[in-house]
Amino acid sequence: MTLVIKAGGSAGVDRDAVADLVAQRARRGRVVLVHGASAETDRLSQAFGHPARTVVSPSGHQSRRTDRRTLELFACAALGVESFQYCEKLQARGIDALALSGPSGRALVGTRKDIRVVENGRTLILRDDHTGSIDSVATDLLESVLRDGRVPVIAPLAVGGDGLALNVDGDRAAARVAAALHADELLILTNVPGLLRDVGDHSSVVPTATVAEAEALATGRMKKKVMAAKEALAGGVPSVRIRAAHADAGPGTVITT
Amino acid sequence: MTLVIKAGGSAGVDRDAVADLVAQRARRGRVVLVHGASAETDRLSQAFGHPARTVVSPSGHQSRRTDRRTLELFACAALGVESFQYCEKLQARGIDALALSGPSGRALVGTRKDIRVVENGRTLILRDDHTGSIDSVATDLLESVLRDGRVPVIAPLAVGGDGLALNVDGDRAAARVAAALHADELLILTNVPGLLRDVGDHSSVVPTATVAEAEALATGRMKKKVMAAKEALAGGVPSVRIRAAHADAGPGTVITT
Repeated sequence: MTLVIKAGGSAGVDRDAVADLVAQRARRGRVVLVHGASAETDRLSQAFGHPARTVVSPSGHQSRRTDRRTLELFACAALGVESFQYCEKLQARGIDALALSGPSGRALVGTRKDIRVVENGRTLILRDDHTGSIDSVATDLLESVLRDGRVPVIAPLAVGGDGLALNVDGDRAAARVAAALHADELLILTNVPGLLRDVGDHSSVVPTATVAEAEALATGRMKKKVMAAKEALAGGVPSVRIRAAHADAGPGTVITT
Repeated sequence: MTLVIKAGGSAGVDRDAVADLVAQRARRGRVVLVHGASAETDRLSQAFGHPARTVVSPSGHQSRRTDRRTLELFACAALGVESFQYCEKLQARGIDALALSGPSGRALVGTRKDIRVVENGRTLILRDDHTGSIDSVATDLLESVLRDGRVPVIAPLAVGGDGLALNVDGDRAAARVAAALHADELLILTNVPGLLRDVGDHSSVVPTATVAEAEALATGRMKKKVMAAKEALAGGVPSVRIRAAHADAGPGTVITT
């Protein structure tokens, strides 16, 4: 049994609840944790006077504008806060965690992309952005870490062909890792209880949705999660679930093909 | 041939020169990089309004006062800036680096210590400090990473018995790693050209010194480096050298038993 858990990096994701779940499941099988870093990146950006900016693609996907300074702050948050705290919380629960990323062990190898964004109704191309997409996952390295009984903790940073780091989407990274490891399940933990029929009503969770239904319902950040779910399913992962990260969360939404 | 390189975390340590040296040596043999994080910790502490404090032990050794918040800032600097940047610089040079620490992979396991400090002529014991000493090095993990052709990049954080992270001295960590791996050489790179006969005169480098001679000459941060050199030699490392980190540095000081 192999489980890939994605823990969001937004405010409202309870790291202790995530660590409890990872530890509990790691005692029974193979678990990989992939995490985000958005709230911590915002905090660091604020402290260093380099405020975060969000850009929106022509298809409505939101992402972080990642100039080189933002990439460094993102790496600092992802590796120095999120990966660190998850590793520490897992060690405190008797689980040997090992942090990996693109720059560390070439866990995720990617390609920098020109970003198309919509600003004031016009589409622009950003050529100096350090956002990328994932080309490959270091399956051998992950298998070796899992074989040694450790839990890989993966930050959403890829390494590009020039060796430089790239900001990649955490949900899609988790989907790629799940597909590469032939995982039995991808569990996406976030700060909402699942896919909502009415985004203003947290009791309107859809228990199951096909990819097409989910694409029709998703807005904002949920669009990337649905895209990740679709990619995981297409990559052969039999079960994808999106739910809240806290301890008494409901079952959330199962996404099916 | 196994070489352990310690790169200081002070201002004035040229990371590109360190990465050049690590990459050059990694093409010929096994290299482990251990780094510090002091200047980056100071920067983060400043940005988050939690200024750094230095304490001095009864024997005159300086160290960082590490309350829990400082530990988190230290981890952020060590893992999110120093380890990240070294991994990235090594990947850009075609070397596959892999970041490790106590919390990540239990690379360094340690014990928290009560810190004795001198303040206004009185000796106090700090019981809430997150500084520790190293009990063991994960030799199997390091050997496995080296066998795969990777360069371990080790941050000076140990994991304690409770799973929580501890700030450990980087020079002494490098000495422990060098002894554990039966390294042929420990090279300590810093922001001064070596052990100086006259601390105000950078041309007064002592080419070789016994541990006893070095202990008599060392002041300030150099005292820890000499202690690390002594521990490495006692641990069976045949050659210990202290020199500047920049590209055109002189040969520095060889410490002998």
